[in-house]
Amino acid sequence: MDEFMQAAIAEARQGLAEGGIPIGSVLVHQGRIIGRGHNRRVQQGSAILHGEMDALENAGRLPAQVYRESVLYTTLSPCAMCSGAILLYGIPHVVIGENRSFLGEEALLQSRGVALQVLNDADCIALMQQFMAAQPALWNEDIGE
Amino acid sequence: MDEFMQAAIAEARQGLAEGGIPIGSVLVHQGRIIGRGHNRRVQQGSAILHGEMDALENAGRLPAQVYRESVLYTTLSPCAMCSGAILLYGIPHVVIGENRSFLGEEALLQSRGVALQVLNDADCIALMQQFMAAQPALWNEDIGE
Repeated sequence: MDEFMQAAIAEARQGLAEGGIPIGSVLVHQGRIIGRGHNRRVQQGSAILHGEMDALENAGRLPAQVYRESVLYTTLSPCAMCSGAILLYGIPHVVIGENRSFLGEEALLQSRGVALQVLNDADCIALMQQFMAAQPALWNEDIGE
Repeated sequence: MDEFMQAAIAEARQGLAEGGIPIGSVLVHQGRIIGRGHNRRVQQGSAILHGEMDALENAGRLPAQVYRESVLYTTLSPCAMCSGAILLYGIPHVVIGENRSFLGEEALLQSRGVALQVLNDADCIALMQQFMAAQPALWNEDIGE
């Protein structure tokens, strides 16, 4: 696996170590990580800091052109909110660690021309499966169910 | 106009007074405001705190059922990110101050069963028109253009 998905997994593991939901993400521009993050629902009591949102927030304010030259890596298929952020900023390419534990808005993203690459990586799947089994109520809260 | 859109406009005006982008929002549950916010791009250097996102964040962690009984008020038609957040949490009803300055993902929301009410309120339009004329680069940054 490439270094960027490894960095997203490292973020997910950091979130788990903090008692949080193990989903991580990095934003990569021209071969360099410019934002990294992980889900902060537990740690910050946040309703909006999913892993992808945290990575975008930590990347800071950027010109539109930077997003359009970037790739977003996320350990889990992006939900409606994170998919909407991808569309807002016109990020053209998303690499997804896995979509077996949760299938987000991949069809919407593809219908708008976003290129998706789904790895179904064993580490990403194991992180989510263990978390979902251990804390189903927290997981349901995170996806609005 | 009802008190809730007035509260969203008050948030937008507060953002403008802070030197920010004049878009505000409130989340209303069973006739009571449970979250309020405004765009924080300038004030916090935020890429994700649009008015609606700020209102959701300030409402805090909530059970899914609360969102499903809530109405989101926003002074401007919600962009892809904010629309995605509405879909994630299953907010069934959105009241929109105006959609003439910017038309967000209203068609997507309606296709997923979200009820929309567009007021095209003169105060909301004036706030955006004056801001967009004064700071076009900042506005374009906010919508990823």
